[in-house]
Amino acid sequence: MLTHEPTKQNILEAHERIIKQIRRTPILTSSTLNSIFGCELYFKCENFQKVGAFKFRGASNSVLSLSETELRSGVATHSSGNHAAALALAAKMKNIPSYIVMPKTAPQIKKNAVQGYGAKIIFCEPTLQAREEALKKVVEETGAIFIHPYDNYSIIAGQATCAKEIFDELSNLDFIIAPVGGGGLLSGTCLSTKYFSPKTKIIGAEPKEADDAFRSIRDGKIYLSVNPKTTCDGLLTNLSEKTFSILRINVNEILTVDEESIINAMRMIWERMKIVVEPSSAVTLAIISENKEKFSGKKVALILSGGNVDLGKLSW
Amino acid sequence: MLTHEPTKQNILEAHERIIKQIRRTPILTSSTLNSIFGCELYFKCENFQKVGAFKFRGASNSVLSLSETELRSGVATHSSGNHAAALALAAKMKNIPSYIVMPKTAPQIKKNAVQGYGAKIIFCEPTLQAREEALKKVVEETGAIFIHPYDNYSIIAGQATCAKEIFDELSNLDFIIAPVGGGGLLSGTCLSTKYFSPKTKIIGAEPKEADDAFRSIRDGKIYLSVNPKTTCDGLLTNLSEKTFSILRINVNEILTVDEESIINAMRMIWERMKIVVEPSSAVTLAIISENKEKFSGKKVALILSGGNVDLGKLSW
Repeated sequence: MLTHEPTKQNILEAHERIIKQIRRTPILTSSTLNSIFGCELYFKCENFQKVGAFKFRGASNSVLSLSETELRSGVATHSSGNHAAALALAAKMKNIPSYIVMPKTAPQIKKNAVQGYGAKIIFCEPTLQAREEALKKVVEETGAIFIHPYDNYSIIAGQATCAKEIFDELSNLDFIIAPVGGGGLLSGTCLSTKYFSPKTKIIGAEPKEADDAFRSIRDGKIYLSVNPKTTCDGLLTNLSEKTFSILRINVNEILTVDEESIINAMRMIWERMKIVVEPSSAVTLAIISENKEKFSGKKVALILSGGNVDLGKLSW
Repeated sequence: MLTHEPTKQNILEAHERIIKQIRRTPILTSSTLNSIFGCELYFKCENFQKVGAFKFRGASNSVLSLSETELRSGVATHSSGNHAAALALAAKMKNIPSYIVMPKTAPQIKKNAVQGYGAKIIFCEPTLQAREEALKKVVEETGAIFIHPYDNYSIIAGQATCAKEIFDELSNLDFIIAPVGGGGLLSGTCLSTKYFSPKTKIIGAEPKEADDAFRSIRDGKIYLSVNPKTTCDGLLTNLSEKTFSILRINVNEILTVDEESIINAMRMIWERMKIVVEPSSAVTLAIISENKEKFSGKKVALILSGGNVDLGKLSW
């Protein structure tokens, strides 16, 4: 696994490493949305990625970067979301065990998804301390390698392949917008932009109700995300040392949007583009809708990070 | 406009005529759905077509087939659904007027859509008689050409281009499945299959609650669709002379499915494929789920006819 900030070469190698097992997701456009917002929008559809989220890129890259010895004992992580499913599937495809620490309160649908990929789930109490203890225990007992959801350079290099694919297909982009939770996707986006399209400006998209990344970059120190009240369940985490250090140097701006804009943007994507995206994805279009003038006439790539939504609990 | 059943040449010409203004929709696959159903499924995504439905193919072909004289007075139809929007947009793109007769009880969202494409709406009482009188009146007053939603050979040739595109990309299909309402899409599918992939079997997919096409083909006479109680708002109409005469000779089978299967199939497409389709589209996958053995190991194309759903009124 990578022990330093990914170089251009590292990202190229990560892409080659994972290309056969990820899906090359399409970049969609909508003439209606372009005319509503007065700019050229390019949507990179990671909702179509395997397990329904960009997380499979990083998980694949980290598993496929392990040595033969490391592989033997498998991988472990704590997550009840897309990273858990992504790591479980990447491990399954490599035929190694995976151990996922999950709060016992996690929704049954998420437990089923991870179990369906053959992972062993270790349930813990829903506290940070219980989670870390459970993870430490499983790592000690099994020798599995801990793959952090984003504070991990191989993960970041994997997520960087998403923006790299955008720059493979599109040139002269004025902006690229990615959602920011823990910062893995946005860090990777920053690095790929720096290496492959240095004139493109990078914007992090964050819910106002979970604006820890915005404040962290503004004040130059990592704030924790405390009880965020946003519908974006993929953006509840805070930055880590590794993602913070990449973002503070490379991101041009973090913009925040309110919940109503996010829901409206999500509905607009479903209705106009006929695709299912999760709220965390829609934050990118919400940024456009709240800042029309800024993007007027511009060429903008937006990363739709995932499409895992509980259809029984829609917000409209 | 065509005055006879479309020939192979007519369909090829229709495709050339409309290719620049329609969207070439993708054919998607899902390894999860393939493994659930034990067959190879290919989904032709007309939910991504302009106006969100295959209807834009037929509407484009009929408008673009009009002579200069005919074009002058514009086009007219009665519909509150996808055909109305499709004809309005096709007329707008050709810069001619369009007149849409619509029951005054039609949902506001549909009125807005049609108006947004610049059509003139003529409201009538919600009865068959009122509708026909209103249409007759507008045609007499304006000289507009009446474009029936499906009892029209230019419309049928346009809808046929959808299956043609499938056969351009895929060979050796065992089955092709299209939903059947008035039969325009299924008739076109029959003709393209006969001309471009004669070994492929053609199945019409119909809700059990609106099984007039099934009964019509079985008994050799057109039954009317009386108060059908199905969630598939695109499949409420009955066959016409022209569609019936094509289907009775060419369709291999019409299969019907119950409402629960349709809703389940729709949810499965949204959840697994991350795309928005309307219930009428999901009838095709419901056929697979109710007839697993029949399709086991087979290569099957399914036409997802559209994606216009009121997101505020989902059936789950």
